[in-house]
Amino acid sequence: MAEPVVTRAHGGGGREMRELIRDVFLAGLGDAGDGGSDDAARIEVPACRLAVTTDSFVVQPWRFPGGNLGDLAVCGTVNDLAMVGARPLYLTAGFVLPEGFPLRELKEIVERMAERAREAGVRIVAGDTKVVPFGDPVVNTAGIGALPEAPVISGSAARPGDAVVLTGDVGRHGIAVLSRREGIGFEAEIESDVAPLNGLVAALLASGAEVHVLRDPTRGGVAGALNEIASASSVEIVIDEARVPVAPAVRSACDLLGYDPLEVANEGCALAFVAGRDAQRALEALRAHPRGRRAAVVGEVREGPARVLARTVLGGTRLVDEPAGELLPRIC
Amino acid sequence: MAEPVVTRAHGGGGREMRELIRDVFLAGLGDAGDGGSDDAARIEVPACRLAVTTDSFVVQPWRFPGGNLGDLAVCGTVNDLAMVGARPLYLTAGFVLPEGFPLRELKEIVERMAERAREAGVRIVAGDTKVVPFGDPVVNTAGIGALPEAPVISGSAARPGDAVVLTGDVGRHGIAVLSRREGIGFEAEIESDVAPLNGLVAALLASGAEVHVLRDPTRGGVAGALNEIASASSVEIVIDEARVPVAPAVRSACDLLGYDPLEVANEGCALAFVAGRDAQRALEALRAHPRGRRAAVVGEVREGPARVLARTVLGGTRLVDEPAGELLPRIC
Repeated sequence: MAEPVVTRAHGGGGREMRELIRDVFLAGLGDAGDGGSDDAARIEVPACRLAVTTDSFVVQPWRFPGGNLGDLAVCGTVNDLAMVGARPLYLTAGFVLPEGFPLRELKEIVERMAERAREAGVRIVAGDTKVVPFGDPVVNTAGIGALPEAPVISGSAARPGDAVVLTGDVGRHGIAVLSRREGIGFEAEIESDVAPLNGLVAALLASGAEVHVLRDPTRGGVAGALNEIASASSVEIVIDEARVPVAPAVRSACDLLGYDPLEVANEGCALAFVAGRDAQRALEALRAHPRGRRAAVVGEVREGPARVLARTVLGGTRLVDEPAGELLPRIC
Repeated sequence: MAEPVVTRAHGGGGREMRELIRDVFLAGLGDAGDGGSDDAARIEVPACRLAVTTDSFVVQPWRFPGGNLGDLAVCGTVNDLAMVGARPLYLTAGFVLPEGFPLRELKEIVERMAERAREAGVRIVAGDTKVVPFGDPVVNTAGIGALPEAPVISGSAARPGDAVVLTGDVGRHGIAVLSRREGIGFEAEIESDVAPLNGLVAALLASGAEVHVLRDPTRGGVAGALNEIASASSVEIVIDEARVPVAPAVRSACDLLGYDPLEVANEGCALAFVAGRDAQRALEALRAHPRGRRAAVVGEVREGPARVLARTVLGGTRLVDEPAGELLPRIC
């Protein structure tokens, strides 16, 4: 018997779509619990100040060491909410699937979404499916989170004197996807760092450290994120290359391929700008959390032109440019 | 000079993407107004009970008589919120664009989104862009609306004795897209009915009529929507074919092509199930609104097996099946 696959009818609004929703999505993700057959889900939020975000995810191949498209779709949006200090609550999920995509593989994606949603403590409350003739599967998620009363955590809130903290080692996600895509075998298999960061952020905020900026360095990597922050806050950021944690296997792979680890995408670490006097307190809180053991202070903020500098391992200083183009397309 | 088009770099998280956001999205849609450079937008909602929905839109061709993909992306999600009685407030927008798509055409889509958002009174507060190698442009929108305290309007709330009201004539959207796609010229150009319905719904609710169900018959048409409601509410629905408003040009086109107007997609009309005693009041409120002039009572709900029957023009009765497959793929 032929393997069941996604057909045009699965996106058609009729019987086949209802069966797909029942057998794949509700079976995997659970019901919104309020009459899932309506055009919109009903939710309750604990406060009137919310954070909202959206992201579409497409990664080639959709399975990679350490996760799949489903992990990205949930963690990416959960992390975008966490990066403004919000507590993630609800997600929506929109699937754009190519005809012929095996239902078994779709279930694999949905299972990872369910697992990551549980881990992050969010509920997926609304969904949609469209079927297109070809291409990679795309999952869009939008997220809603509860904002705290204060402080405002923003890319425009960096201040001279801030310490720049990185919560984990960099480059894993990009190198993991690349190795699978290109069939490159490195000595050690490098797994993506994809993970929800809301628990880690909550631990950091609970420490009482004064946090000004949070940013997860996904597309564009650390170099892209720092340039955005320097520009939005009109400050100069200086990092020490030697203090940026990079796993030896990731460093070897980057050397081999000619990549700068600062430009490679991450999906499970964050940059935190904290008041300089609170750097130690922030580090301790992060390192006490399972996802923050490798946290390190990697630089500081000072008055100056809006740019990013790096003290190199050799003792010089170089300008860290905003990456142009895309190092690795369709990576998250 | 070559026409500017979407390139891989526009989805890459670097300089090109920032320029796209500034020149196309912020120029067209306006800033979220709270530091648009952060990973999530900050919003305020007036109450803690919200409706949430998501939909991905892909239509071939992306321009059709009466609108384009941008009209659909805003109206579709606004209408999904309106169909649970919610007041639409905020949208997110996720673009999945093929490499080479002209920026001028993207601007045309964004302009329609901005125009429809203004019309519906919603703000687009967060966005995302991914670039894929080929395919049609896809826009995903997620929406957040404020739910009233009561009553619960739901596809599972139809009751025997309800009058089934249709707020406008059916079949326009599907036939408009089909005519453009296939290059069929009908005597009169048929325009899509795409429009935000939240104003019309507000007028209906303000009339005091007891509304049990609202549903916009998009993919699957009126036949699909009525079958969903019959099944969710465990009731029998009987409609009079002769009372279903269909524009003469749409009826001719359907006759010619062998389509049942009840199965053709709509984007600007709704089914409303109201307590039978309130049918007249509901009709008056709808007809007084510019989008409801052709509103008509088309049937009623009774106890019986969960199914949909139609009294035919010839005096017989037929079973109206849930449409299987997809009459017209990639239509909304």
